[in-house]
Amino acid sequence: MHIDGRTEIIAHLGWPTHSFKSPLIYNPYFESAGINVLVMPMACKADSFARVLKGLFELDNVRGALITMPHKVSVVALLDEVSTAVQVCGACNAVRRNADGKLVGEQFDGEGFVRGVMRKGMQLAGARCLVVGCGGVGRPIAASLACAGASEIALFDASEHATADLAQRLRTHYPQVKVTTQGNDPAGFDLVVNATPLGMEPGDALPVDVMRLEARTFVGDVVMRSAITPLLAAAQARGCKVQAGTDMLFEMIPPYLEFFGLPVATPEQLRAGARL
Amino acid sequence: MHIDGRTEIIAHLGWPTHSFKSPLIYNPYFESAGINVLVMPMACKADSFARVLKGLFELDNVRGALITMPHKVSVVALLDEVSTAVQVCGACNAVRRNADGKLVGEQFDGEGFVRGVMRKGMQLAGARCLVVGCGGVGRPIAASLACAGASEIALFDASEHATADLAQRLRTHYPQVKVTTQGNDPAGFDLVVNATPLGMEPGDALPVDVMRLEARTFVGDVVMRSAITPLLAAAQARGCKVQAGTDMLFEMIPPYLEFFGLPVATPEQLRAGARL
Repeated sequence: MHIDGRTEIIAHLGWPTHSFKSPLIYNPYFESAGINVLVMPMACKADSFARVLKGLFELDNVRGALITMPHKVSVVALLDEVSTAVQVCGACNAVRRNADGKLVGEQFDGEGFVRGVMRKGMQLAGARCLVVGCGGVGRPIAASLACAGASEIALFDASEHATADLAQRLRTHYPQVKVTTQGNDPAGFDLVVNATPLGMEPGDALPVDVMRLEARTFVGDVVMRSAITPLLAAAQARGCKVQAGTDMLFEMIPPYLEFFGLPVATPEQLRAGARL
Repeated sequence: MHIDGRTEIIAHLGWPTHSFKSPLIYNPYFESAGINVLVMPMACKADSFARVLKGLFELDNVRGALITMPHKVSVVALLDEVSTAVQVCGACNAVRRNADGKLVGEQFDGEGFVRGVMRKGMQLAGARCLVVGCGGVGRPIAASLACAGASEIALFDASEHATADLAQRLRTHYPQVKVTTQGNDPAGFDLVVNATPLGMEPGDALPVDVMRLEARTFVGDVVMRSAITPLLAAAQARGCKVQAGTDMLFEMIPPYLEFFGLPVATPEQLRAGARL
């Protein structure tokens, strides 16, 4: 990796930064493709975020920013333009400055999930989908499923407020989609998504009753701790196709590269080069 | 070079950044020594500088900043504490945040020059020195020569104002030193320094009348365009010992490393690893 006076920066803003994976994925790709850009972690606390973001985007060689916890929600109010995905989720993961100086926000968490399951053969047009977990990851996934043509999205969260809030957002932005909130029984769905943290810790409960999974149901998990979580292992045992959290991770990077105006690689190329 | 969630940043702030050499010197050293710190050019225009500096030092993983044109003078007013060298020069090249949150400024241009000539055997205690050029580089060199025990410092600049201003600053901070402003005749001095840009372009005039140089006089040049400038070539032909601009460059890096609280390498180690 080479840094010189022409290197551009994609700032990765969050706190704490110690577990950041983005530099280990983006930078090996930039190096191998001869792209003089670096993803640089910047450890920014909540109180400082507005000033830091403003200052960074005054630099000529800042191409954009990746935004993670604890700033994904607070950043939205600081931007000039945001995508529909950001509006539905109330959260944003990427910012760039357009030629006219406007700060523009996007987020591709849901896009990454959807690209992954479609590339594994899943038909989302007309599909009935259950999304368990209506927080920071469930919201963009639900929005992207709606955008991809799902006919029904069933929502479940331990917080009734979170469930109702996301249901309202989906009905507002995607009136053609049937949105239901009847529990977390996975029977009868074409797609079941775990968007809760369940599976990160040993001994976690399963997010759905896996004995009710049908073999024809596609099961996706966002938990990245191990490639095959207990949920996915159980789903595979039931004959289901599955998608792991890291699949979603690598699927979302091409749209981020495109958003930043950079040459795009395939998820497979990015995964092969990553130094995780 | 490796960037991860624990990497720290030394921001190199200036505009334009394209010719920045610092990442090509510091970063290979950090890499070879296993120091998880990077010098990162940040292209900052004058109007933005105060906001950018403030924002950057709110980041937990910014260890410091190198400051170059056009901010070397304007930065001084933004700091909480500055060294005597910064006060004499009215310019600062490095900023760090102390544990108490204070922004502290230093500059080692003159220190780099002085360390170099002393390591080449020059005795500065009691020395009579001529400094030609009283601008951004001449001022710190004159201050460091005074600090190192020079008995007389003769100043010359095409601008009478610049000459008088630096003379006044030296007399204020180093009253024990004889400061004179009698022209640029190099005869009779122990040390002659070119701190003007003369020598950067082919066909430039020489900064002093080299036929008046004595063999016992040590001649230093700050121009970095070629290792041996026309002035240094002429001085060597007269039998003088010389110091090139790049010698001064590598000599000043150890004090900057120390200022940032990092392990120090020798100028020779830094030069050997640099990717210039």
